[in-house]
Amino acid sequence: MSIVAVGSVAFDSIATPSGRVQDILGGSATFFSLAASYFAPVRIVAVVGDDFTAEHEKVFKNHGIDIRGIERAKGKTFRWGGQYLDNLNEAKTDFTELNVFEHFQPRIPAEYMDSKFLFLGNIHPSLQASVRLKMDGVRFTGGDTMNFWINGTRPELLETLKLINVLLINDTEVKMLSGERNLPRAVQKVLAMGPQALVVKHGEYGATIFFREGAFGIGKHPFRAPALPIEEVKDPTGAGDSFAGGFMGYLAAQEQINREVLKRALFYGGVMGSFAVERFGTERLQSLTRDEIDARFQVFRELTHLE
Amino acid sequence: MSIVAVGSVAFDSIATPSGRVQDILGGSATFFSLAASYFAPVRIVAVVGDDFTAEHEKVFKNHGIDIRGIERAKGKTFRWGGQYLDNLNEAKTDFTELNVFEHFQPRIPAEYMDSKFLFLGNIHPSLQASVRLKMDGVRFTGGDTMNFWINGTRPELLETLKLINVLLINDTEVKMLSGERNLPRAVQKVLAMGPQALVVKHGEYGATIFFREGAFGIGKHPFRAPALPIEEVKDPTGAGDSFAGGFMGYLAAQEQINREVLKRALFYGGVMGSFAVERFGTERLQSLTRDEIDARFQVFRELTHLE
Repeated sequence: MSIVAVGSVAFDSIATPSGRVQDILGGSATFFSLAASYFAPVRIVAVVGDDFTAEHEKVFKNHGIDIRGIERAKGKTFRWGGQYLDNLNEAKTDFTELNVFEHFQPRIPAEYMDSKFLFLGNIHPSLQASVRLKMDGVRFTGGDTMNFWINGTRPELLETLKLINVLLINDTEVKMLSGERNLPRAVQKVLAMGPQALVVKHGEYGATIFFREGAFGIGKHPFRAPALPIEEVKDPTGAGDSFAGGFMGYLAAQEQINREVLKRALFYGGVMGSFAVERFGTERLQSLTRDEIDARFQVFRELTHLE
Repeated sequence: MSIVAVGSVAFDSIATPSGRVQDILGGSATFFSLAASYFAPVRIVAVVGDDFTAEHEKVFKNHGIDIRGIERAKGKTFRWGGQYLDNLNEAKTDFTELNVFEHFQPRIPAEYMDSKFLFLGNIHPSLQASVRLKMDGVRFTGGDTMNFWINGTRPELLETLKLINVLLINDTEVKMLSGERNLPRAVQKVLAMGPQALVVKHGEYGATIFFREGAFGIGKHPFRAPALPIEEVKDPTGAGDSFAGGFMGYLAAQEQINREVLKRALFYGGVMGSFAVERFGTERLQSLTRDEIDARFQVFRELTHLE
């Protein structure tokens, strides 16, 4: 089944210990869409400027991603610059130029309306909510957010959380959103805000999915997927969005959502995140094969599997 | 098979968000011995002062721990005071009174000399080495260390690392010891210093075991065990030593050491660490049953097991 992905398309300038790149294709919806495209058809909703060329379009089209929801506005595409020179786990932002993204109002093409899966990337929570409410045929919604919205637009975010099935955020964001430093307690507070499940991303340590009692009819035991401790990280940008793409993409391709399927989805999230960081930007995500993905899934499985 | 454990016996004064305790039994060799005692016979080597009473002795004797290697010296037992009020992952030391521990010279009782397993707790690396060299019948040695020795006695530590089979330290210590911030690279540098295997403890995220190529005849793929993300942490003191106790204790009870056995040992390490933090000091480790331990092992397994 197809997924609609709403979020940013951007041009990133990035410095890491492995090198520097300028104005390469990035953005939350870009990483998400490419990662998810290996599992299910993806339809993207975003805004770009005049500087978005046919070359950039091709990156999406090569993966069968429907770009009718990419709006072209007058002006420049969203630009972000950041570095990971001191710490690969945390970006230091050099600049953020919102450009056309500042007035982004997601427009959902009529042809997208039959999608049953929706991913609300990291944008203003009111925009997230409006998209979800418009798409009333959606069966399963994943969402992301960040410190900027948690602190700046909390009431709106709390409304949005009632509309999504799975929230995917990192440890710091869970603690910030809940106002609770103890992770198990923080998780319970976030689950009480609305989502049936919460995926907490632990960076190099993997991710854990927590369930509200009775969610998906599967009880409340959490599940943990590892990250790969043997690979070199070249550029962490987009790891979280690629994780979400693998997770949601795998779910969208399944007949039903049960505990075993959610566990595998969490593993595929980690797999896609691990590929994303191997090269700068979306380079690695552009060139994968499903065989490579499944081979790495087995490596992840071996990493934690007891006979 | 029996394990000899060398390290500290201490009286700890601890403050955490769950409360405060004063002068309760602690120390690396104490936590290690109690945790390991559920799997294999343990023989302890440590030093205590006049304030170590028959009550304290009983804690060890109740678990069949051989205390002939506990030397009684004139003066007070090692005392440590610390708090975890701001951060459960890191202790803030209030005071350290070495007392009789300052001049600790481990003496191995003749009756201990047939032990095949040895755990070198966190003491001066020269003392660790001298114990290992005295016990020439030992087949398998685990060791711990800390920032104080990594920075202060590096040459001695590098000699000791050549004598041990498995080093168990945390992420920060691996990076400090290797001088390398990237964990995969840091791990390779530490393995090149001598140990066949390196267990990196990730606190609330579990632990990973890395192998030198060909170590134990099992190849070099790492393995990850989770920590339990659902329990409340009351007092983190001793979690790492309890982890080491579960890990080494399980190994000592097996016929042979192979990949599957090492994986299970890593899980049992996490299990014992998770029990230790549920109550202050050694309280929870004193009252366990093997059934409770195996039930939690199953919970850990479920946490990461794909069908």
